[in-house]
Amino acid sequence: EILAAIEGHFAATAPRPLAGRRAVVTSGPTHEPIDPVRYIANRSSGKQGHAVAAALAALGAEVTLVSGPVSLVDPAGVRVVRVETAREMLQATLAALPADIAVMAAAVADWRVADAADTKLKKDGSGAPPPLGLALNPDILATVGHHAALRPALVVGFAAETGAVEIYAREKLARKGADLIVANDVSPASGVFGGDANTVHLVTAEGTETWPTLPKAEVGTRLAAWIAARLASATDL
Amino acid sequence: EILAAIEGHFAATAPRPLAGRRAVVTSGPTHEPIDPVRYIANRSSGKQGHAVAAALAALGAEVTLVSGPVSLVDPAGVRVVRVETAREMLQATLAALPADIAVMAAAVADWRVADAADTKLKKDGSGAPPPLGLALNPDILATVGHHAALRPALVVGFAAETGAVEIYAREKLARKGADLIVANDVSPASGVFGGDANTVHLVTAEGTETWPTLPKAEVGTRLAAWIAARLASATDL
Repeated sequence: EILAAIEGHFAATAPRPLAGRRAVVTSGPTHEPIDPVRYIANRSSGKQGHAVAAALAALGAEVTLVSGPVSLVDPAGVRVVRVETAREMLQATLAALPADIAVMAAAVADWRVADAADTKLKKDGSGAPPPLGLALNPDILATVGHHAALRPALVVGFAAETGAVEIYAREKLARKGADLIVANDVSPASGVFGGDANTVHLVTAEGTETWPTLPKAEVGTRLAAWIAARLASATDL
Repeated sequence: EILAAIEGHFAATAPRPLAGRRAVVTSGPTHEPIDPVRYIANRSSGKQGHAVAAALAALGAEVTLVSGPVSLVDPAGVRVVRVETAREMLQATLAALPADIAVMAAAVADWRVADAADTKLKKDGSGAPPPLGLALNPDILATVGHHAALRPALVVGFAAETGAVEIYAREKLARKGADLIVANDVSPASGVFGGDANTVHLVTAEGTETWPTLPKAEVGTRLAAWIAARLASATDL
């Protein structure tokens, strides 16, 4: 509470370049049920997405954070909507529009089990695995990036890759209709998953900017500042 | 720390019927990698398994807790071994033998992906899902319950079901070589997953005992007392 009071004090005196702006941020993994007990998930602590949401709020934005299952406390001053599946995350994200800023930092499962079982699947004794019919999940970033009526002025996606990071990120930039892809290498050796540091590349139509390895909170702060500057320059045009 | 000091005080004066006994407890889910980013998991907070480990330690047992990925603090006075997959859990469990008591409370994935990818699987644009070749995981409870050389004197398994709870539990008792199956209904409506309460049925060769809905910590305490009594009576024979 003391920390919150101090933060509140500085927040009140700090510049608030995003005051009056609305932002929607997704964070964390999605869990796609196989049956009531089992699910398919992505590795994502939600630390980076939550840090971005907190940093945008600190700059004055009105932030809705759509979060998959994580073990994090809610960032102060942010409206948090909890979801589990990709489809729920899409619905909550669209419900948060219109917004000026969308930062899609969640690790959304590409696939779900088409017909999740209502009761626990049992081994049938044959040793044969249960058939898992997979269905393609909606692409939340592409849906927002290409939204005809409600596309935010600035759409930011994240790309977690295990190699060829910039190549995949640049391909995603166009295909998903994003203004910026924040790309990082999440190979096991990187320690990014669950860790507190991140090394990101900012991929835009203009080029690629690589930041040094930074705490995820600092990446969030710098990204919020980048977003504020970009929106300000866009408004100046 | 004050709490720990108080607990330490009571632990020093409380009866320690399991002093000199070794126990191995598994807890939490397993995560079975699909690729560096994705995995298959079971819903399990680890609360019940961790509570049992803490309660056995409080009665004087020397406890090794083999835990899958959970968001819980380590119970005091317990040696914790962290694992991720079912195969790692089996290895760590066997490494903790010989033991007098085995309590297999983890929600172990029945299936793993046979050939987990070293790099992130990419959508191929066809809309077709990646083939997931599943392989049967080792059955940790059955391995321990039927261990020729190192079977603990008392082997306890857990059965999380979504219906026909006692029927499945009694079938498991024999097939897995367990002395006791602690069965509970984990249907979504039960609120057991992630919740703090549990309603369990103790299924043994002698019959079934149903406990009222209790906090998971209390289920742990009662179960540790049950184990201590059972071991004492076995020793008396």
